[in-house]
Amino acid sequence: MEIARPLDIINQSKGKLVIVEMKNGRSYKGKLLAWDAHPNIVLEEVTEIETNTKYPWIFLRGDNVSCVKPVE
Amino acid sequence: MEIARPLDIINQSKGKLVIVEMKNGRSYKGKLLAWDAHPNIVLEEVTEIETNTKYPWIFLRGDNVSCVKPVE
Amino acid sequence: MEIARPLDIINQSKGKLVIVEMKNGRSYKGKLLAWDAHPNIVLEEVTEIETNTKYPWIFLRGDNVSCVKPVE
Amino acid sequence: MEIARPLDIINQSKGKLVIVEMKNGRSYKGKLLAWDAHPNIVLEEVTEIETNTKYPWIFLRGDNVSCVKPVE
Amino acid sequence: MEIARPLDIINQSKGKLVIVEMKNGRSYKGKLLAWDAHPNIVLEEVTEIETNTKYPWIFLRGDNVSCVKPVE
Amino acid sequence: MEIARPLDIINQSKGKLVIVEMKNGRSYKGKLLAWDAHPNIVLEEVTEIETNTKYPWIFLRGDNVSCVKPVE
Amino acid sequence: MEIARPLDIINQSKGKLVIVEMKNGRSYKGKLLAWDAHPNIVLEEVTEIETNTKYPWIFLRGDNVSCVKPVE
Repeated sequence: MEIARPLDIINQSKGKLVIVEMKNGRSYKGKLLAWDAHPNIVLEEVTEIETNTKYPWIFLRGDNVSCVKPVE
Repeated sequence: MEIARPLDIINQSKGKLVIVEMKNGRSYKGKLLAWDAHPNIVLEEVTEIETNTKYPWIFLRGDNVSCVKPVE
Repeated sequence: MEIARPLDIINQSKGKLVIVEMKNGRSYKGKLLAWDAHPNIVLEEVTEIETNTKYPWIFLRGDNVSCVKPVE
Repeated sequence: MEIARPLDIINQSKGKLVIVEMKNGRSYKGKLLAWDAHPNIVLEEVTEIETNTKYPWIFLRGDNVSCVKPVE
Repeated sequence: MEIARPLDIINQSKGKLVIVEMKNGRSYKGKLLAWDAHPNIVLEEVTEIETNTKYPWIFLRGDNVSCVKPVE
Repeated sequence: MEIARPLDIINQSKGKLVIVEMKNGRSYKGKLLAWDAHPNIVLEEVTEIETNTKYPWIFLRGDNVSCVKPVE
Repeated sequence: MEIARPLDIINQSKGKLVIVEMKNGRSYKGKLLAWDAHPNIVLEEVTEIETNTKYPWIFLRGDNVSCVKPVE
C-alpha cells in the first residue's frame, strides 16, 4: 500500500465498511459516505457496536474521533 | 445517498427529527431548526432523552456535540 | 419558528429566563443579559440550580457552556 | 442593568469582591485587579474558598475559568 | 542520532514497526505508512495491543496521539 | 497594587518565590525564572509540593497551568 | 541562571538527561534529542519510569506534555 498523506486512506475507503471509534468510547460501523479534513465523518447503514442499534446514517464530529479502521 | 461534505447530511435534515448526542453523555431529540459549521445546533420541540424533559427549543454548543443521527 | 443561524435563538431570548448548562455539570437559571459568539454569557437574577444559591449576575465562560434552553 | 458584551460585567467589577470558579472545581474569592479577553484574571486579597487559605494575589489562567460571580 | 526537528524521527521511521499510544490509553503496533504535522498517523498490518486484534490499517487522529516509539 | 494586564503580576514576580498549580493537580514552588504569554513557566530551585522532591529547574507547559500565587 | 524565554531552558538541555511528564500521568527519562515550540519532544535512550521499559527513542506529542525537568 502506498499513500502520501494520512487522509488518503480515508479517501480510498469511500463506500466501504469502516469502524469509527470515538474518544468517548463509542464505536460505529458503517459505509463511509463523506468526510472532511477534521475529519468529520458521515457513515450510512450504521450499527452502534456496543448497543447493536441501527441507523440509516450518523454524523460524527471530527474532534471526538479517535481512529478509523476497516471492516474485513 | 450521495453527499459531498459531512455537513450536507445536516443540511438535508432541516425540519426533520434528529438525535444529538453530547460529549458529556446527554442526548436530545428534536426538530432540526438551525446549525452552523462547528456545528452549533438548535433543535425545537425537544426531549432530553435520559430525563424525558420537554423544551420548546435548545441551543447545543458545537464543541460539545459528539454525533447527530436521524429518528426513524 | 424560523431562524437563520443558531445564535439567533440566543438573540431572541434577550431579557428572558433561560437555563445554561455547563460542561462541568452546573446549571444556572437567570435573565439573559449579554452574550457573544463563543458564547460567553451573562445572566442576571441568577439561581444556581443544584444549590438554589442566588446571585445578582454571573459571567459564564463560553467554552464551558454545553447548552442553553428556555424556562417556561 | 444594561451591558453590550459579556466582558463588560467584568469591567464594571474592577476593585470589587468576586468569586471565580475554575473548571477543576477550585473557587477563589478576592478583589478583581486585572483581566483580559480570555479572561485571565488576577485577584488580590484572595481566599481559596475550599481551604480558607489566604494569598495577597492569584493569577488564574483564563482557559480554566468556568464562571465569575459577585460577592454581596 | 542527529535530527533537527521532532517529526524527523517519524520521517525516518517510514515502513518500520512502531507503537502509537493514544491519550485514551489504547496502543497500536504496526508499520508506519503515512503521517502529517499533527501528527495524524496511518499504520498498516496493525495489532491493537490490549486486545491483540489485527487490522490491515488504522487511521489515528493526531490530537489523540500521546507518543510514538519504535518496536525492536 | 495597580496593574494593567493579568500577566503584569507575573512580570513583577521575576526572581520571587511562587507556587504554580497545574490542571492535573500537581503544585510546584520555586523562583520564577522565565515565562511567556501562554504562560509557559520556568521555575528554579523547585520543590514539587506533594512529594517534596527538589529540582534545579522545571519547565511547566502553559496550557496545563491553572494558577500562579505568591509564597509569603 | 538567566534565560529570556521558557523554551531557552529546553534549548540548554540538548543532549542532557531530562524527565518529561505527560498529562496522562506517564513519565519518560531520556537524553533530549529534539524539540519544537509546542513542545513536541524526542528523547533517546529512554526509560518509561513507571514500567522501567527501555526504548531507543520516543516521540512525545507536545499538547500532552505537562512538564520537563532535569535528571541530576
